[in-house]
Amino acid sequence: MRIVLIGFGNLGRGLSRALVQKAGFLRRDHGLIPRVVAAVDEFGAVVDEKGLNLAGLLKTAEGKGTVALHRGAKRGRLALQVIEGIEADVVYELTPTNIETGEPGLTHIKRAMQAGRHVITSNKGPLVVAFRELDSLAKRCGVEFRYSASVGGAIPAVGLAKKLLAGNKIREIRGVLNGTTNYILTRMSTEGAPFEIVLREAQELGIAEKDPTLDIEGIDTACKITILANSLLGTNAGLKDVKVAGIARVRPEAIRLAQEAGQTIKLVGTAKRGSLEVGPKLVPLGHPLAVGGTLNAVTFELDLAREISITGFGAGPRETSSSLLGDLIDIHRTLGG
Amino acid sequence: MRIVLIGFGNLGRGLSRALVQKAGFLRRDHGLIPRVVAAVDEFGAVVDEKGLNLAGLLKTAEGKGTVALHRGAKRGRLALQVIEGIEADVVYELTPTNIETGEPGLTHIKRAMQAGRHVITSNKGPLVVAFRELDSLAKRCGVEFRYSASVGGAIPAVGLAKKLLAGNKIREIRGVLNGTTNYILTRMSTEGAPFEIVLREAQELGIAEKDPTLDIEGIDTACKITILANSLLGTNAGLKDVKVAGIARVRPEAIRLAQEAGQTIKLVGTAKRGSLEVGPKLVPLGHPLAVGGTLNAVTFELDLAREISITGFGAGPRETSSSLLGDLIDIHRTLGG
Repeated sequence: MRIVLIGFGNLGRGLSRALVQKAGFLRRDHGLIPRVVAAVDEFGAVVDEKGLNLAGLLKTAEGKGTVALHRGAKRGRLALQVIEGIEADVVYELTPTNIETGEPGLTHIKRAMQAGRHVITSNKGPLVVAFRELDSLAKRCGVEFRYSASVGGAIPAVGLAKKLLAGNKIREIRGVLNGTTNYILTRMSTEGAPFEIVLREAQELGIAEKDPTLDIEGIDTACKITILANSLLGTNAGLKDVKVAGIARVRPEAIRLAQEAGQTIKLVGTAKRGSLEVGPKLVPLGHPLAVGGTLNAVTFELDLAREISITGFGAGPRETSSSLLGDLIDIHRTLGG
Repeated sequence: MRIVLIGFGNLGRGLSRALVQKAGFLRRDHGLIPRVVAAVDEFGAVVDEKGLNLAGLLKTAEGKGTVALHRGAKRGRLALQVIEGIEADVVYELTPTNIETGEPGLTHIKRAMQAGRHVITSNKGPLVVAFRELDSLAKRCGVEFRYSASVGGAIPAVGLAKKLLAGNKIREIRGVLNGTTNYILTRMSTEGAPFEIVLREAQELGIAEKDPTLDIEGIDTACKITILANSLLGTNAGLKDVKVAGIARVRPEAIRLAQEAGQTIKLVGTAKRGSLEVGPKLVPLGHPLAVGGTLNAVTFELDLAREISITGFGAGPRETSSSLLGDLIDIHRTLGG
């Protein structure tokens, strides 16, 4: 399978490491021989139609910060040129998320589909801005489109609902979809410490970003619940359709009171037909959404199974490579591999 | 798709109700038109190659306790005759579990495979007694074999690992796989009441059986962890290979001490290569295995995703029909439907 990687940051490198380590396993257990024919970042591209030496490329990227300084690389913004000019089966779109325009990922994905490539992405931007358009375009172009890594990192929430719970009607989706806020709320609950103190600690540990706005104001969670709703409930929603509240106003006393009543407070995204919402919610202790630390969780309310939840790590390059690789194996199987 | 139902107790009826209610949905969303051509229980069989009226048959079975008293039914033990004599695509084996011989399910499944039928079962017996044999037989006969409902009721644990986490190596599987014992331990922890009292209460509520031995001694959990190990770790284990301890000796004081340390006690089945075990274990509060009430949960330890857990209801005819129907849709898709 000929693969093009667009984006060679944390996720692109995590995926590449997994491809290197798992070459034998993928061939033996899945009959899958991935051949990365191009890797592109914002500064340049390396191309080898016989297949790049990923281990060598990883060394360059980790040492020098870009693939553009690798031997034989071309410099410049070359993503579209590579997507359209290099023969490939699958394009991975792994550039950073822009939730306002979806770019550059949105154009990358459209051009890849139009060129007849299957697309796998971790990029929330294009999915929040233009889900329906991309979903239809994939069908019109006859290509597969997978985005497991865009919601919940390692958690295959979309596949679980579409493939394994396919006999059910989904009544509601609830998710703890942001590891940073879940870490903060968990620490507030175990330490009784106020939000500001725990946020600073999380920033020092690298769990929260220097500008944590998108996380703590609930925007990141809103993106993910929008993607789940569009993908699984058939809605055509954007961020503007989500009623969002963050966690900055949650007080340790409120968490303590909740605990005395056998509950805890989590930042929960909720999707049902006609309503999308993000905000701090009471969750009973012992419920799967009451997971601690940086874990994420998604609960589906279903007509037959009643309630199925899945939990796991929502971020991290190695964890997320589980979803990125799972999507590749799934496409390989779908195509009869 | 022509379907034969062997076993028309709680699960067979639950599945039939789902098939009746979801006929439109299955046709519209999955292009699947299930036609039940025979339903068999230990007293008799009804057959109609044009498709049975399931709603009518459900009335008979619920009113009179058997399909043998339905109009046009034949009396007698007719399962093998129907499996081999009635043209069908899929045989559902839904008879009660016998963990010593696997019968009558084991013979039903073998004969169905040899007759070229795909097989879906909820029956733990054959899977505990002869997993490898059945798995090879299915391959030799060129038929699909699915058993999602045999472990965890509504929880699609096997499919999750095989289909959605396929890029990972599974290092360990841990499961809270028995709703009765989980209910008892949860009540002991919330009430501080002793085992014997809570067991009696569970029996009065119908959550524990009159003879609760298989549940409370951990045998049911041992069956399920054996099936998961054989299916997902490639082992060839039987019940005799599982080191089993039950929950009768768990004292409320032990649970209280655990809680003071931020933990709880659950009956956990554990499988890794070379070791199968069932027993009461400490689980941190906030961990997905610390689910309450009658919920079940399965945690996979994985090389890429680190840890993924899935929770849901492990029993109940409606809940389990989610898995039974999911397997049917999956076979339909696999065959290119």
